[in-house]
Amino acid sequence: MSLAPIAVSMGDPAGIGMEIAAKAWLARARGDTPFFLIADIQATCQAAQGVPVQPITNPADVTAVFPAALPILHMPLTVPAIPGAPDARNAAALVEAISLGAELAMRGTACALTTLPIAKSLLYQAGFGFPGHTEFLAARTGAKRPVMLLAGASLKVALASIHVPLAQAASTLSIAGLAELGRILDQALRIDFGIAQPRIAMAGLNPHAGEGGSIGREEIEILNPAAALLRQEGISITDAQPADSLFHAQARLGYDAVLAMTHDQGLIPLKTLHFWDAVNVTLGLPIVRTSPDHGTGFDIAGKGLARPDSLIAALHLAAAIAVRRAAA
Amino acid sequence: MSLAPIAVSMGDPAGIGMEIAAKAWLARARGDTPFFLIADIQATCQAAQGVPVQPITNPADVTAVFPAALPILHMPLTVPAIPGAPDARNAAALVEAISLGAELAMRGTACALTTLPIAKSLLYQAGFGFPGHTEFLAARTGAKRPVMLLAGASLKVALASIHVPLAQAASTLSIAGLAELGRILDQALRIDFGIAQPRIAMAGLNPHAGEGGSIGREEIEILNPAAALLRQEGISITDAQPADSLFHAQARLGYDAVLAMTHDQGLIPLKTLHFWDAVNVTLGLPIVRTSPDHGTGFDIAGKGLARPDSLIAALHLAAAIAVRRAAA
Repeated sequence: MSLAPIAVSMGDPAGIGMEIAAKAWLARARGDTPFFLIADIQATCQAAQGVPVQPITNPADVTAVFPAALPILHMPLTVPAIPGAPDARNAAALVEAISLGAELAMRGTACALTTLPIAKSLLYQAGFGFPGHTEFLAARTGAKRPVMLLAGASLKVALASIHVPLAQAASTLSIAGLAELGRILDQALRIDFGIAQPRIAMAGLNPHAGEGGSIGREEIEILNPAAALLRQEGISITDAQPADSLFHAQARLGYDAVLAMTHDQGLIPLKTLHFWDAVNVTLGLPIVRTSPDHGTGFDIAGKGLARPDSLIAALHLAAAIAVRRAAA
Repeated sequence: MSLAPIAVSMGDPAGIGMEIAAKAWLARARGDTPFFLIADIQATCQAAQGVPVQPITNPADVTAVFPAALPILHMPLTVPAIPGAPDARNAAALVEAISLGAELAMRGTACALTTLPIAKSLLYQAGFGFPGHTEFLAARTGAKRPVMLLAGASLKVALASIHVPLAQAASTLSIAGLAELGRILDQALRIDFGIAQPRIAMAGLNPHAGEGGSIGREEIEILNPAAALLRQEGISITDAQPADSLFHAQARLGYDAVLAMTHDQGLIPLKTLHFWDAVNVTLGLPIVRTSPDHGTGFDIAGKGLARPDSLIAALHLAAAIAVRRAAA
């Protein structure tokens, strides 16, 4: 039995999303899982710059269409998309594209949802009540604890805190929260990534992982107790390690993923090493969801300059996870 | 006129310091600025593992001795050094080695001081009243604002906060403090590194550099005003940039150094890229001071396993800075 196709939500139509979707279609290879774009057909035609697109009315048609054209499930915009000039009047349509993609993935009509980038500030103006895709999808799919994992070829990092001011990041951490995160990460490494005996490295919050309590006590009071609890449950996770020495080539051989305490602590090494090809994966959802690890690219939209590398990696990873979950 | 030799303080005699000093001497090349070790002669003989050492009584003898042996200015330990087993009774001697090195550099008898690693917790037990080398040397040389710069071949980062708990890092930042740091960094890039028109990139404190104030307001209230002030003074520095996108290969072409807000924000990318060869430089001192960017290595001390790469880079950089300062 072959996999259902991957649903791709359009993202902000004034950004590079539809352009990279067209480029990803051009880069398709035999054996790739087909995908379809949930987007405005007119806007996609413009953005696709000559790449053939074809409207579909049912994801079941994707397999037949995909070899010859990028399949589009039409989601009409309110006003025409202008590259580089996002318009809040189109916010409802792009949110609906995400929502429909999630629904198709819940039903199994799509094997996964890959989301193209959105501009949060614009969505907030339009009344979008979530910090981002991750939280929106958790609400739509009834998930309790979505976890953001970034995956590059040589490094995977999961984030214990995401879009919070740095001064507040420490106060969001708890033993129970880190333990829950560790369990979700361990499970995802086993099932989604097919690693039989995953090894997790926990990064310290403070410089030198607190240096025995002299530069902050969170390691002693929160991080290490959470790690100890997880080890009691049979999960392989280290105590908090000095984060600055955790990401060089030799160190990366010692683990399968890092549990990072803050956004930048995880994303700095990830993007230093994998700026073009990293993928954002949401763990803890009942559906498979990936996305390219970059923004809307309003500054280069419509110019043909955008690179599809990260989207292509996101599509490949979505399919790989869908296969492993189906077999689990 | 040739440069005075570089003084090297022994660091913790139970660590890898003297071993890597001997290895750095073995790796000496014609034209290198000679260096001498301020250390216990007996302990050095043991650690040097067959590398010839020779006692000197005056740094003026270094040039004559250096081609044939590692010159040692004797600084007696209280108890014999045991690799891997630091002893607080030797703390006074190792602090005195740093102090003497600084004094020789102040006098011009040494062109620079390169310090080997110390274990802070041990020194605290022995009553050492400074967070580390940097602050101790600032006090000894009468410097007001020492700045920690880490330099690798493809990246330089200066730190706005160093050994403070992460939850407090934000509260240590001020417009005046960042502006002072920017001036010291700009000056160092010009004089110490010979860059005619230095370009500094300022990293944001919060995820996405605060995303317009929605994830923290320090960028708006502190970081960007400091950058604007520096630009008014003719210094080339950006507003706060999202730190996660600041360190990949293409981004690094856009600046000469990054002003990082926290220890890990600067050290994670630096050590991810330059784990073996990065150098720690203290800016804002009246003397040239460098050090290898690693710790005492108690776990591998005495086994012959320690790599001298970072020390060698620290010695080369010390000499290069001394030459440029002499010519400025």
